[in-house]
Amino acid sequence: MKKTLQSIWYEQERDQLKIIDQRHLPHRLVIEALNSVEEVCTAIADMHVRGAPLIGVTAGYGMYLACREALKKNTGIRFLAACGKRIRETRPTAVNCAWAVEKQLQVLEKERHPEHRCTVALQTARKIEASENENCRLIGQHGLTLIEEIFRRRQRTVNILTHCNAGWLACVKHGTATAPIYAAFEKQIPLHVWVDETRPRNQGARLTAWELAQAGIAHTVITDNTGGHLMQHGMVDIVIVGADRTTRRGDVANKIGTYLKALAAHDNRIPFYVALPSSTIDFTMRDGLQEIPIEQRNADEVRYVHGLAGEKIEQVLIPPMDSPVANYGFDITPARLVTGLITERGICEAAAEEIESLFAEMLPEPGQN
Amino acid sequence: MKKTLQSIWYEQERDQLKIIDQRHLPHRLVIEALNSVEEVCTAIADMHVRGAPLIGVTAGYGMYLACREALKKNTGIRFLAACGKRIRETRPTAVNCAWAVEKQLQVLEKERHPEHRCTVALQTARKIEASENENCRLIGQHGLTLIEEIFRRRQRTVNILTHCNAGWLACVKHGTATAPIYAAFEKQIPLHVWVDETRPRNQGARLTAWELAQAGIAHTVITDNTGGHLMQHGMVDIVIVGADRTTRRGDVANKIGTYLKALAAHDNRIPFYVALPSSTIDFTMRDGLQEIPIEQRNADEVRYVHGLAGEKIEQVLIPPMDSPVANYGFDITPARLVTGLITERGICEAAAEEIESLFAEMLPEPGQN
Repeated sequence: MKKTLQSIWYEQERDQLKIIDQRHLPHRLVIEALNSVEEVCTAIADMHVRGAPLIGVTAGYGMYLACREALKKNTGIRFLAACGKRIRETRPTAVNCAWAVEKQLQVLEKERHPEHRCTVALQTARKIEASENENCRLIGQHGLTLIEEIFRRRQRTVNILTHCNAGWLACVKHGTATAPIYAAFEKQIPLHVWVDETRPRNQGARLTAWELAQAGIAHTVITDNTGGHLMQHGMVDIVIVGADRTTRRGDVANKIGTYLKALAAHDNRIPFYVALPSSTIDFTMRDGLQEIPIEQRNADEVRYVHGLAGEKIEQVLIPPMDSPVANYGFDITPARLVTGLITERGICEAAAEEIESLFAEMLPEPGQN
Repeated sequence: MKKTLQSIWYEQERDQLKIIDQRHLPHRLVIEALNSVEEVCTAIADMHVRGAPLIGVTAGYGMYLACREALKKNTGIRFLAACGKRIRETRPTAVNCAWAVEKQLQVLEKERHPEHRCTVALQTARKIEASENENCRLIGQHGLTLIEEIFRRRQRTVNILTHCNAGWLACVKHGTATAPIYAAFEKQIPLHVWVDETRPRNQGARLTAWELAQAGIAHTVITDNTGGHLMQHGMVDIVIVGADRTTRRGDVANKIGTYLKALAAHDNRIPFYVALPSSTIDFTMRDGLQEIPIEQRNADEVRYVHGLAGEKIEQVLIPPMDSPVANYGFDITPARLVTGLITERGICEAAAEEIESLFAEMLPEPGQN
């Protein structure tokens, strides 16, 4: 099973969407069936699934479930648009969710027959999934060249730092930030990954560490405070992170704390790369700091930490019960701190000209922007 | 009791040293008696007490307990020196521990009679305590001017960010980084403090939040990842942190993650101040990155998080059981990122000339350095 495990999959024979409910990792591997738009929205909002590409794929399948519901209820495109709106609003920062819903609605608007809509929506969801997988594979191949180059120069284990989880659990296969790591590991380049635990939800300690352990890749979990110290002492060769949204000029929204790592990489002249499929680029935005909405989540995610206590998953309260807590989900790393973007079409500078020329046909028409 | 609570105190009538065992805060207020050098070493190493000034004061009293043991065992200065060595070696990064032991040994070497040594060691320990308290009070007065100045200019609530706990729990009274905050609060300047939770041991979320809540000062607990985002959005007016050791040219060793906040402050042109008594300055060192030893602590401090589960204090495991973990306790903030040092003698630039002129008589003789 391990070999073929994905973060999400559609079971044809049962007409059923399945996910790994990632809240229980690394201590429990829980598989969940998503049977309705309602369940899809809960799964995204409560982070059973997370990671920009996976949110996109889940939203894509969510629109198929919407078509199935429309068929039963005998309703039409307005119902589908309303479902799309609900799905889009689950997470404001990652653009992939809106992108996948939009892609589905464009196709579904052209279909009139409810049953055809189901067929077409499922095809589209599968296409989104396949294309994200292929994009991640290509990101791995392009990013591999960076790691190979470091190994060629240093002739020793390559130390990579990553923040949060931009692995296959955040996508479907390969991952974005981890794709070059898996590709380099396959090529037997000696590697070691520093894994930021990534408070508040510890996606690094829980998910990235679990993924790397499953693959047998050497890694060390560290607190989010540690990266600067490691970089000051030459213990990091390259930083690779994912993205939840990237603007047309290369500002990157990613998990809160990414900006701090980018500053440390810049201060220590360490290359800082962002790996992302084009579905994560928001061509309608330029200035990330001004334009990208930053999600604020429930303060209890900071107050309580979940983990294994004996045989049970428990939560413990850290600060005084009455102390106010803030929980910003993302921050913006300005393009000036990003060495490059690793995309499915190759590596480019985080700059409007390069991004626009690499993805020319995806740019919105003038006036739409 | 609240009003007179200190982090450490000596009870004359019972000839007994008492501390708050800070591992149980904020959920339990546990008072512990330290009856031997052994218990003092455990209390420092296992962080029942922590914070550079408090470690210094505890080490000072520890040397008094050493004299009491020497009297019982009828041993002399070599025993005391060995006790001093054990106490010094409990925590390598904070210099105050070595500084207090050294101060005691200098005095004790001049005394021959074991009973006199007890008397003199207790006097010295009390002097160290009193002088640290006075230094913290003065740091508060000098730092207050910075907060007053911001308030005068902005005419709104002053937002201060702090990392870890450099409050009275890290000292005896007042605190270092918190001393200006308490002083400004007394002057009724409207304040709000962003409290970094400070993984792995959460001294911010557990101790600073508790201290501020006790004092009734508005505050918000955040993850260590959050400060950069807040600074990018004008939500922080000044950063004030403590220090575990500061070199002669102004490089600052402080809790791991401090460097990342200093980078963000610098990137957003926000003043970054370090509050410290002169006992935290190591005049024998210049280059913090090269010279200050960085303590590595037990990986389980990162793996497990302690907190309140129902009525009990429990610990939960976050990463996969078998994933390797690293736990560096401190990092170095280079002087170039420090706007100024708030000391008991006033505010000075983090630069050799200014530090050396402010503390001229404390410099080691040429050749000793």
